[in-house]
Amino acid sequence: MEFLKGMKKTERLELKDIIGGAHRNETVQVSGMVHAKRPVGGGLTFLKLRKRDGLLQCTCGERVDVSKVPEESAVVVTGRLREELRAPGGVELVAEGIEVLSRPAAVMPVPIPKAKLNVNLDTELGLRPVVLRHLRERSVFRVQECLGRAFRDYLRDQGFTEIHTPKIVHAGAEGGSNIFRLDYFGRKAFLAQSPQFYKQTMVGVYERVFELAPVFRAEKHSTARHLNEYTSMDFEMGFINSFEDVMAMETGFLQHAMALLREEYAQDVERLGIRIPDVSAVPCIRFDEAKRLAAERYGYSIRDPYDLEPEEEHAIGRYAREVWESDFVFVTHYPSKKRPFYAMDDPEDPQYTLSFDLLFRGLEVTTGGQRIHDYRAQVAKMEARGMDPADFESYLMAHRHGLPPHGGLGIGLERLTMQLCGLDNVRYACLFPRDLSRLEP
Amino acid sequence: MEFLKGMKKTERLELKDIIGGAHRNETVQVSGMVHAKRPVGGGLTFLKLRKRDGLLQCTCGERVDVSKVPEESAVVVTGRLREELRAPGGVELVAEGIEVLSRPAAVMPVPIPKAKLNVNLDTELGLRPVVLRHLRERSVFRVQECLGRAFRDYLRDQGFTEIHTPKIVHAGAEGGSNIFRLDYFGRKAFLAQSPQFYKQTMVGVYERVFELAPVFRAEKHSTARHLNEYTSMDFEMGFINSFEDVMAMETGFLQHAMALLREEYAQDVERLGIRIPDVSAVPCIRFDEAKRLAAERYGYSIRDPYDLEPEEEHAIGRYAREVWESDFVFVTHYPSKKRPFYAMDDPEDPQYTLSFDLLFRGLEVTTGGQRIHDYRAQVAKMEARGMDPADFESYLMAHRHGLPPHGGLGIGLERLTMQLCGLDNVRYACLFPRDLSRLEP
Repeated sequence: MEFLKGMKKTERLELKDIIGGAHRNETVQVSGMVHAKRPVGGGLTFLKLRKRDGLLQCTCGERVDVSKVPEESAVVVTGRLREELRAPGGVELVAEGIEVLSRPAAVMPVPIPKAKLNVNLDTELGLRPVVLRHLRERSVFRVQECLGRAFRDYLRDQGFTEIHTPKIVHAGAEGGSNIFRLDYFGRKAFLAQSPQFYKQTMVGVYERVFELAPVFRAEKHSTARHLNEYTSMDFEMGFINSFEDVMAMETGFLQHAMALLREEYAQDVERLGIRIPDVSAVPCIRFDEAKRLAAERYGYSIRDPYDLEPEEEHAIGRYAREVWESDFVFVTHYPSKKRPFYAMDDPEDPQYTLSFDLLFRGLEVTTGGQRIHDYRAQVAKMEARGMDPADFESYLMAHRHGLPPHGGLGIGLERLTMQLCGLDNVRYACLFPRDLSRLEP
Repeated sequence: MEFLKGMKKTERLELKDIIGGAHRNETVQVSGMVHAKRPVGGGLTFLKLRKRDGLLQCTCGERVDVSKVPEESAVVVTGRLREELRAPGGVELVAEGIEVLSRPAAVMPVPIPKAKLNVNLDTELGLRPVVLRHLRERSVFRVQECLGRAFRDYLRDQGFTEIHTPKIVHAGAEGGSNIFRLDYFGRKAFLAQSPQFYKQTMVGVYERVFELAPVFRAEKHSTARHLNEYTSMDFEMGFINSFEDVMAMETGFLQHAMALLREEYAQDVERLGIRIPDVSAVPCIRFDEAKRLAAERYGYSIRDPYDLEPEEEHAIGRYAREVWESDFVFVTHYPSKKRPFYAMDDPEDPQYTLSFDLLFRGLEVTTGGQRIHDYRAQVAKMEARGMDPADFESYLMAHRHGLPPHGGLGIGLERLTMQLCGLDNVRYACLFPRDLSRLEP
C-alpha cells in the first residue's frame, strides 16, 4: 500500500527561489517552456524559459545542443546560476544539460516573444489559446485574478458569506428579451442574467453574502463594452441605513484591491503600465445633476433625460477626472422607470430610485442600490408594472417571511479589468469571450 | 459634493464584538432578525436575535413592548449587556428599547427555531428560501464556504493562477448525451460539462491554473448523489512527473481545508457534529485491486469489471476505513475505455489510464489524472475512437503549439460538503438544487 501525504518538495526551482540571490553559483534544475530562442554567435544560444512567474534566461554553449529544441518545447535545464545584470531578474542559468519533455508539432502562428503582437482583434481572439502565452496577456489576467481575490478577501473580512446560486433558472431577474433560453428536460428554462433573486433571498439567511460567478446576457449589440457571458462580482448586505452603505462597501473593496495590486502584482502593473487610481475618496453625484454638469461643461445637449448614453458616461467620467481628480464617480438616483422592479424608489421623489452606477474612467462598471424589502411594497410595485407576482413566488417567499432593509451591487469583472489595464475592448479582458459571432475558442 | 471614503464604523455591535466580555454592562445597539420569541412569565419575553455569526439572547421586560414584533422581524435593540451563562455565548442583552425595521407579512411555514425541522426533502427544498434560515442549514453552507476558500487559498499558495472560462461552449468536454443544448443567436451551443479543454489550454499559459465555477450535466437519473448543475473545483498543473503529483496536491488541499475548518469554523463543525477526517496519509490503490479486495472481504461477486458501481464504491470506502483507517481512498488506473479521450493511457498497459478517483466515505468526490500533452498522440487517440479532430480545433491548438506533461482534477463541491457534513442527499448540500423535476426556487 502506498499513502499520499501531500506535496513533496521538488528539486526543480521556481523563479521566486532564484531571484534575490539564493542558489547563486550552485548547480540547479529549472523546468519551463522555451519562450524564445536566439543564437548570439560564438556557438552560444540564449533561451528564455517561460515559468509561471516570469522569464529566466539560459545560456547554452556548444556542449548543450538545442538545435532540436524549438520554441514552445517543455524542457528541464540543468545548469549553474550566475549573476547577470542584463538578464531578467539579474540572474542567468548557464546550461550544462537539457531534457526535452515535449515538443510542439508546429511553429507558433504569432511571434509570442515580441514586445507587441501587432495582430488585430479578430485574429487574436481566434488564436487566443496560444496568444495568451504572451507576457502582456498573462499580466492582464493576473490583474483580473487580483481583483476577484480582493473582492472575496475584503468581503469575507467584512462578515460576508460566499454563496453559489443556480445559473439555470425559471425566471429572469432583469426582465426584457436579453435572456438565453434552453430546454430543461422538456421544460422552458433560462440562463441567469444575475444572481439577484438568490442573493436577496440569502440576505435573510446570512445578512451579508457575495458571489463571483458567470452571468449570461443575450444582448444583440456588438460593442466594445458588451459580452454575452461575463463574470459578475455580486454582493448584497442587510441592515443598511441607506444605499450609501453599499457605495461605501464598494469603495472599501476598491481600496483593498488597489493595495493588493500594488503589493503583490507589481510586475504585472509595471508590464502593462497601469496607472493605479486613487480611491481614497470617490465622488458621488445625482444622475440629473451629473448629466447637467457634463452637458454644460462640454457643450452638448441632453437627448434622453432618463438614461445615460455611453458618450454621456464618458463625459461624466471626464468631468470627474478634471474637476474632482477622480477616475471613479458614483452616479446616484437613476430614474425609476429605467431600473428593475426590485429597486427602491426614493420616498422623497418616487420618480427616482435609491440606486447608483459606478463609472470608472467613463465606463459603467457597477450597478447597485437599495432593494424593496417589504412584501406588500414589492407586490404593489410589480402590479403597477403589470407583472404577475405569482410568477415570482419563490423569490417573494423571502419578503413574505421577513427581510431586513438591504442593498447590493454587481460589478463586471471584465469591465473593471479592461479599464484598469487601459484596454480598448472588453474582449481583451476575457480569456475566451462570447459575443454575437464568437462561440469558440 | 459628497465623497465616499470606505466603510464607516457603525454603532451597532456584532457578536464577535460582544463574545469574550467586551462592552459588558454597557448600553449598546444590536441589530438582527427575531429568530425566536418566547414569553417566560413575569412580564418577561426572551427574544433570540439571529445575527450573521450566531444568536444573541435579549430579555424584554414590560417596558419594552414586543407584542407587535413577530418572529422574523428585523430589529435594532438598545440595551445593556450582562453576563448570563445560560444564554448562547454567555451573554444577554437586557432590552431598553426596540426599533422595528421591517415585519414579515406571514408566519413561517416551518418552525425555524426548533433544533430539528422534521420536514421531508421535497417540502424542505420547496421552502428553501426560508428553511435556510435554520442554524443547521446555515452551518452546512458555511462549511461549503470553507472548502471553496481552502481550495483557492491553498492552490494560490502553490503557484496556481485563478481563471474564468466560458460556460456556453461549442463542444462538450465529456462527450455523451448528458449535455444541455441551447440556441445561441441561431447557432447550436451547449452548457459546459467541465472546464476541461480550457484549463488544459491554460496550462500552456500559466503552468498551474484553477477554477471554481458551475458545471452542467443533463443526466436523466434521479439519485441521492446527482445534481444537474453543480459547483466544480478544478485544477490543472504542468510539469508533473506522474499523476501522483496531482493526488499529492489534492491531499495537500484536503489537509489545508480540514485545518481551516478546525480553526475558523469550529461553531459549524460542532453544530453539525462533524467528525473531521484524518487526511495526513491517504491510501492509494489500483482499480482492479480495489475491486477484488472489497469483493473478497464483503463476499460479493464483481458484475462489471470496467466500472465501479455505487455499491462497490461504498464497499471500497468501507474497506479503506476498516483496513487503513482512512475516510478517503484514491482508486487509480481506471480502464481506458471508461475514461475520456484526453486521459493518458498507462504505457505499461494501455488498457488502463494514469487516472484516479477519490472516494470519501464511499462516494466519488473527485475524478482526475494525467492528460495527453503530445499533439500527435492526442489526435491518434481521437481517431481511434472515431472522433474527428477537426471538431476540436481550438482545443488542439494548445497541443499543436506545445504543452508540458500535465494533469489535473475536478472536485464536486456539493459532494464533498455532503460527505463531510454526513448528509444523506446531495441536494441538502446545494442551496437551490437543480434536478430532473426541480427548476425552482
